[in-house]
Amino acid sequence: MSEVVYLEDLQPGQKFSSDKVQLTADAIKRFARDFDPQEFHLDEVAAKASLFQGLSASGWHTAAITMRLLVTSGPRLAWGFVGLGSEVSWPRPARVGDVLELRGEILDVRPSRSKPDRGIISVHCETLNQRGEVVQDMVARVLVPRRPRA
Amino acid sequence: MSEVVYLEDLQPGQKFSSDKVQLTADAIKRFARDFDPQEFHLDEVAAKASLFQGLSASGWHTAAITMRLLVTSGPRLAWGFVGLGSEVSWPRPARVGDVLELRGEILDVRPSRSKPDRGIISVHCETLNQRGEVVQDMVARVLVPRRPRA
Repeated sequence: MSEVVYLEDLQPGQKFSSDKVQLTADAIKRFARDFDPQEFHLDEVAAKASLFQGLSASGWHTAAITMRLLVTSGPRLAWGFVGLGSEVSWPRPARVGDVLELRGEILDVRPSRSKPDRGIISVHCETLNQRGEVVQDMVARVLVPRRPRA
Repeated sequence: MSEVVYLEDLQPGQKFSSDKVQLTADAIKRFARDFDPQEFHLDEVAAKASLFQGLSASGWHTAAITMRLLVTSGPRLAWGFVGLGSEVSWPRPARVGDVLELRGEILDVRPSRSKPDRGIISVHCETLNQRGEVVQDMVARVLVPRRPRA
């Protein structure tokens, strides 16, 4: 999907995948300092003694990385990825050295009832580590324009 | 809520509020460069011409700021905020200069059926701007330990 796409170009079942990105200890700690300053995201020793048994990324860091993968590798939506909301879960933590990638699938495509120039799609996004384990499972609702009349 | 709290200390209806944090153009662009590199989060002129009609924060930035407010101002959970997942929506964008704060309420407290040392709470978190408008509405599921036997 390299051309700009409109609602009419999308249908349930379309899939896409992403580049890969490796998670470093520095990136985990930097995000945590800014947004999730809990010791198990900031310090290896504290992390070892925590429920996580080692340094792991904030779930919101995993979500943010997923957004980057979506924006850089997903379908080129005409308005970009304008998210209305998401359901997200983190079945296991993303850890130092993990190589993350995204697997996406369009679940639903729905024209707006009230606004004829747009619609809403649901996209299922699984963020996987290098063992193919899901570190984040998300369904995002995204605003997509209809193709303008010529 | 300044003492460390366990599942037994929590019940539906308990409320909390947070400090305030002001959103700057620099912070919006920095987050966007790292995680949501779309022009309407990166550049004032492009943002003006976009659906958003001005520079606004990535929804994931608003989510990350909300997490910071939750960690620094929310109840002091014994294991910290260990999120299992969240439903999040962004009814309107957070914009440059907005002063954000969090209003939280415990919705549900449920001991685990399989693991006697823990439970799951649901927390409703509204992130408000300085006009009291909701920029993010979230329900988060968080793992909380039961109080250890003496």
